[in-house]
Amino acid sequence: MNITYESVAVSSRIRLARNFNDYPFPGMLIRSPHAKEQASEMVRTVHEELNALEEFDFYDVGTLTEARAAYLVERNLISRDLVRHSAISAALIAPDESISVMINEEDHIREQYFMRGYDLKKAYERITGIDDVIAESIPFAFDKEFGYLTACPTNLGTGLRASVMMFLPAVSRRGLMRRLASELNRLGLTVRGASGEGSGAEGDLFQVSNEVTLGFTETEILAAVEEALRIVVQFELRERERMKKEGGISLRDKVTRSYGILTNCCVLGMGEFMELVADVKLGIALGLLDCGRGLSALDDHIIAMRPANIDRLNGRTLTESERDAFRASETVAFLRKKGIFV
Amino acid sequence: MNITYESVAVSSRIRLARNFNDYPFPGMLIRSPHAKEQASEMVRTVHEELNALEEFDFYDVGTLTEARAAYLVERNLISRDLVRHSAISAALIAPDESISVMINEEDHIREQYFMRGYDLKKAYERITGIDDVIAESIPFAFDKEFGYLTACPTNLGTGLRASVMMFLPAVSRRGLMRRLASELNRLGLTVRGASGEGSGAEGDLFQVSNEVTLGFTETEILAAVEEALRIVVQFELRERERMKKEGGISLRDKVTRSYGILTNCCVLGMGEFMELVADVKLGIALGLLDCGRGLSALDDHIIAMRPANIDRLNGRTLTESERDAFRASETVAFLRKKGIFV
Repeated sequence: MNITYESVAVSSRIRLARNFNDYPFPGMLIRSPHAKEQASEMVRTVHEELNALEEFDFYDVGTLTEARAAYLVERNLISRDLVRHSAISAALIAPDESISVMINEEDHIREQYFMRGYDLKKAYERITGIDDVIAESIPFAFDKEFGYLTACPTNLGTGLRASVMMFLPAVSRRGLMRRLASELNRLGLTVRGASGEGSGAEGDLFQVSNEVTLGFTETEILAAVEEALRIVVQFELRERERMKKEGGISLRDKVTRSYGILTNCCVLGMGEFMELVADVKLGIALGLLDCGRGLSALDDHIIAMRPANIDRLNGRTLTESERDAFRASETVAFLRKKGIFV
Repeated sequence: MNITYESVAVSSRIRLARNFNDYPFPGMLIRSPHAKEQASEMVRTVHEELNALEEFDFYDVGTLTEARAAYLVERNLISRDLVRHSAISAALIAPDESISVMINEEDHIREQYFMRGYDLKKAYERITGIDDVIAESIPFAFDKEFGYLTACPTNLGTGLRASVMMFLPAVSRRGLMRRLASELNRLGLTVRGASGEGSGAEGDLFQVSNEVTLGFTETEILAAVEEALRIVVQFELRERERMKKEGGISLRDKVTRSYGILTNCCVLGMGEFMELVADVKLGIALGLLDCGRGLSALDDHIIAMRPANIDRLNGRTLTESERDAFRASETVAFLRKKGIFV
């Protein structure tokens, strides 16, 4: 992992989908008269086993405030589907937010490992450790032919989804996303906007992940994803070079103006913030802006500036305009302090 | 003159229009077979008389390069009409650019005194000194009933035009220019865009000047202009207060963003430059931006950033994009150095 790679592959996420043999799948369970008892049995067992391994923060989704749930969703630690299942669902989250185990989302168990940058092998080893512990507590639903059984057939087999958040300003601004997407599809991968299925691209961020979970081993899937990502990174880097060569002073102007607005504004909506930050990140990537402590601090800041994250930082629910003002002043301070400058 | 006044009344200009008895008016002269001889006789006489008083830079318009002429026009030291009369015209300009005497523009003599801020009495005294010297050299065309005779009847009588360049962001942005204009018309004054007759307003700058030159003494005209200007200044200041009160954070946001772009851009066209600078000046006027050495340095910078001025600073004719790049880098440096900041 080097800075060039990191400037494209922002963060990685590996998740495993698992279900238990002895319980109805969540979609069924929630309609069962024994939902509460069965769910708390599962939750208690998983909680105990995992806490024996290491310390996790425990969240009973049914008692979560709306604000706290939104905060966790924005940080990708829980999903909206988990919140919808609040009658039966829970989450265990590592204090450093690298691991999240969701109970009774679409499947009984969704184990997720998150990291900055991109090291799928390390991510997979880490999540396997968690998976083994849970597997010992309650037997998983596993079929010799189909592998792990899941609620949705797209997760059948390994239940493994590796997704990498990619910053692709050059490919997307040069109108090449469609070409990239079809190339990735050929390799068994999909590209989506940053916020997941159906979402538009925000700030030139795209999620690349494997489509196929069945018929290959975990190692084969990860190797295929790594290979595809290498192609994406090279494609993006080549287009950045072209962009830099062809963009000249008007590209630099765009980048430095966005920086100028971000370091001087008083009001900043989320959408504009994402666009301007994408310009600044592009500028850093192209060497047009100096970047002290780097991209990953900026990526953390982006997450911290989401609405529910802002509310949590303030300890109360803000109005939209209060958030825009807070986002502006925090961003001005952040960029000036972090030593990112023209 | 205080800073508040100066933040509205940017600069003042007094000019006198005069013609000589013994020569055909310029519009006739230029078509005469003796144009050259008669013109050089006039020019020589005026030049000698004025140089005896103090030192002036002398410009024979016929031998001026196009670039130099454009430069002087941009600095309001000569007019486009003078350039059109290049076969017979000349100009004498004080090294500090406070005084310019144009020979054979629309009238034989146009004497102009220019100053930052607004002190019409001082301006008039200064230009009268020049006028007296010229009057001694060649007798002026003067009629007992009509006063000084001029090519255009609108200048008849005193030949005096007092114009004040006014920065009216609040009045104009709040849609009150029409109301102000009709009030001024009632008082015998006109309002025009910054670049003179027929020009649109640039950067919220407007020229206010007396319409009537006949039937009043010079002192009466100047007193009427001063009185009208007091009204304009008060009107603008009142509207600024309202703007500040009502504008809140979105007004501050507009001002600080414009500042952010001006201090970070790489390309800056003249039109956008004027708009952004107007925001910054408004911000200074409203106390939203700190301003070290103040507005008048900024006003000098605005003039220096006009196309022909940029060419002269570079010692050659630049392309439009070269100028935009130069304007950007000079403005970034100027604002950072001058201690104008958020």
